[in-house]
Amino acid sequence: MEGAHAVMRLVVVGGVAAGTKAASRARRVAPEAEITIYQEEPDPSISECGLPYFLSGKVPGRDRLVARTPEDFARNDIGVLVSHRVEAIDPGAKKLSVRNLATGEEFEDRYDRLLISTGARAILPPIPGADLGGVFLLRFLTDADRILAYIEKHSPRRVAIIGGGYIGLEVAENLRELGMEVTLIQASDRVAANHDPEISERVEAHLAQKGVEVHTSANVEKVSGDGRVRSVHFGGRDLDTDLVVIGVGIKPSVELASEAGAETGKTTDAIRVDRQMRTSLPDVWAAGDCVESVNLASGEPAWIPLGDTANQMGRVAGTNAVLDPGDEKTLEFPGVLGTGIFKVFDMGVGRTGLSERDAEQAGFQVASAGIDSVSKASYYPGAGKVFIKLICDVETGRLLGADIAGDGADKLVDVCATAIWGRLTIPDLVNIDLAYAPPFGPALSPVTQVATILSGRLGRNDKGS
Amino acid sequence: MEGAHAVMRLVVVGGVAAGTKAASRARRVAPEAEITIYQEEPDPSISECGLPYFLSGKVPGRDRLVARTPEDFARNDIGVLVSHRVEAIDPGAKKLSVRNLATGEEFEDRYDRLLISTGARAILPPIPGADLGGVFLLRFLTDADRILAYIEKHSPRRVAIIGGGYIGLEVAENLRELGMEVTLIQASDRVAANHDPEISERVEAHLAQKGVEVHTSANVEKVSGDGRVRSVHFGGRDLDTDLVVIGVGIKPSVELASEAGAETGKTTDAIRVDRQMRTSLPDVWAAGDCVESVNLASGEPAWIPLGDTANQMGRVAGTNAVLDPGDEKTLEFPGVLGTGIFKVFDMGVGRTGLSERDAEQAGFQVASAGIDSVSKASYYPGAGKVFIKLICDVETGRLLGADIAGDGADKLVDVCATAIWGRLTIPDLVNIDLAYAPPFGPALSPVTQVATILSGRLGRNDKGS
Repeated sequence: MEGAHAVMRLVVVGGVAAGTKAASRARRVAPEAEITIYQEEPDPSISECGLPYFLSGKVPGRDRLVARTPEDFARNDIGVLVSHRVEAIDPGAKKLSVRNLATGEEFEDRYDRLLISTGARAILPPIPGADLGGVFLLRFLTDADRILAYIEKHSPRRVAIIGGGYIGLEVAENLRELGMEVTLIQASDRVAANHDPEISERVEAHLAQKGVEVHTSANVEKVSGDGRVRSVHFGGRDLDTDLVVIGVGIKPSVELASEAGAETGKTTDAIRVDRQMRTSLPDVWAAGDCVESVNLASGEPAWIPLGDTANQMGRVAGTNAVLDPGDEKTLEFPGVLGTGIFKVFDMGVGRTGLSERDAEQAGFQVASAGIDSVSKASYYPGAGKVFIKLICDVETGRLLGADIAGDGADKLVDVCATAIWGRLTIPDLVNIDLAYAPPFGPALSPVTQVATILSGRLGRNDKGS
Repeated sequence: MEGAHAVMRLVVVGGVAAGTKAASRARRVAPEAEITIYQEEPDPSISECGLPYFLSGKVPGRDRLVARTPEDFARNDIGVLVSHRVEAIDPGAKKLSVRNLATGEEFEDRYDRLLISTGARAILPPIPGADLGGVFLLRFLTDADRILAYIEKHSPRRVAIIGGGYIGLEVAENLRELGMEVTLIQASDRVAANHDPEISERVEAHLAQKGVEVHTSANVEKVSGDGRVRSVHFGGRDLDTDLVVIGVGIKPSVELASEAGAETGKTTDAIRVDRQMRTSLPDVWAAGDCVESVNLASGEPAWIPLGDTANQMGRVAGTNAVLDPGDEKTLEFPGVLGTGIFKVFDMGVGRTGLSERDAEQAGFQVASAGIDSVSKASYYPGAGKVFIKLICDVETGRLLGADIAGDGADKLVDVCATAIWGRLTIPDLVNIDLAYAPPFGPALSPVTQVATILSGRLGRNDKGS
């Protein structure tokens, strides 16, 4: 009988991080299934978050970033076809058109279950001259290879970075550490603009201290040069430069899913999925940077493309994609908090939940407080400064968000993320029993310190949890 | 009318940490109240947790450890009488007998409200010879002063530390860093014995690597010398030594409260208090190391004397002690999780909630899992090892405890403490949105990694929260 196969065939479109995780999970859940991953990029399983550090040599050697090779997957009986692009899905016939990018050959494949993890790609803004030599995006390992080859060949002394988000700031640090003169050009009025303004101020001060020149509210009008880049033009000025890296954001890669008829979300055109990571198409799941999730702090849809979330979504989608409907092993992915962190030189900068503005827009009556605290007992050597701001709902006292910059930010962000996940209130954070010893923090955690101040502002009594 | 006073008089017995915090809070809540602190020790507000680091000079200068002086309190209109011991309380007459330890003079004082924060003191085990010169406890700044004076005078080359808990291990590190030969003698069969055995193993291996000789299951039978200590005897052997530091634990200082008739608790003879930190005596509150609390992970009484908890209890007790009954500003202290951490050389060691054994004793059906993970992305320079073990309730999936040793332990302990406080389950920790960037951890937090393994063992589906 045509279309009936004894063995379930799962096809995964796109590799790291969601796709490879999903495939590995599916293999464990369904040892008999046929599993194939198609991926456009030549490297199957790359730690993309490490790319900025690969530029400076802090992560030495590209093989350090290769988490797993096709051979590793083969040992696990997962076929990986790199440099293969899936060009179309026919969800009715459960067929795929695939192009081998190495040979140009196009062929057809079939699936019983399909998992889309096409990820997101860097936005190339429409700046005249952005096609010149020496102008780069940084998203894939191949991008990093190209930047390094260019550095090797031309020994650039000056770099202009367009964009002051995570990638722009991480690249600024790493190219500065190679000794370049670094200028960062940001369109909005502050860097790290998805953080609250108190954080952006501190990041800008830290950049200045590290010798990075920052221009905000500055739109790059064009890039010019003689085959390769020589200058960037913004706000009526010309800046000589030998290299340009653009990091103005990413967008979900959803054309394949959209053209096949998958519904997209509300926040971007990312793919809409339910809690089981199913798309609107039959027997098609999706996971990773290409899907929309929900922010659990607000209950609103949210598109927050990050590697760790992709990994967690991949686990759920990969499990469910090989189960029968209603199987008790079915998993659910509850949503995200928008937790994120980056390092810029000696400063950790992280956030979780809702920003003050997001919280107001979501309809909460908001109270907030921010304090400067320390990362160890103040008398203990190496104590560093850290700023922490908490955002809460006045009605319930519930923590909605936290925005943090400085030494030990990663710990405080994770505590706040866990608190939001657990729907803890400000009074909870006043009394919570966190770990104290002088090498690890002040006697009361900065979280408790700021919660105590905020508790006073709320004018609530704190009966505790 | 005798006994009626226009202004409320609050007397606080005992200073740091609970007493001074309580007094400061009381001052804010009741600007008109008379507030007096009596304290036996000469230094009113000392960061006692820093004492081991004061020995090595890592914290240089004793003034670094003085958080606040009597003058600081005076500016806040809080009277502090140091070197004064309260010798008796008459709760009927609301009177106190006080002795000035400097002059020997005894006098009477009165109170409207009384707050007892007499803390805990180091246990001096009945070892023959423990009264020799060169044998020390380490609890107060005066102890540290005496040890330093002895080191200055006698330049000890070898030290024997009796006790392998937090204090013993911290002292081992700091005296080793002064270049001494350090031998640690522990009565039970492993060091850090309030952690699970997997942790003790790792601590013992780390001590060996740092050149600290450890003897477990070893009872010290006597200490001998010629006026000052020359050797310790345990398990049939003689160990030559120039200095002995004893850190076998602490006990609550409750004689004053007990003799006045205050009820004591179930776990030790620590003072029993309600959630408002009231003792069984009228108008008498208590806070800090001298009181019993409740472990929120089990609901059982628990005596967990730590500085940060003392501070939090002091805030609640100090507020309530100056309010009228039923005032809406009344606070409650919900309990503790037994969260604690210490550093030994390059290793952080922390725990929260219940150990596996505690959880079983509390009647839970327990599952646990432990893994070795890393503190940064494995390819990022400086990634250190960390072991994490989670303990959960099989029936509900709820996290009950965590035991952690290694690099970045402080972050993971605080995440787990927050999770227990929020009554999160293992499936919550599988999906929770924590912060990831290569300098701050692996792509999935060690908490999520181990929760995922434990989730598989539970054989539960994880519908998330």
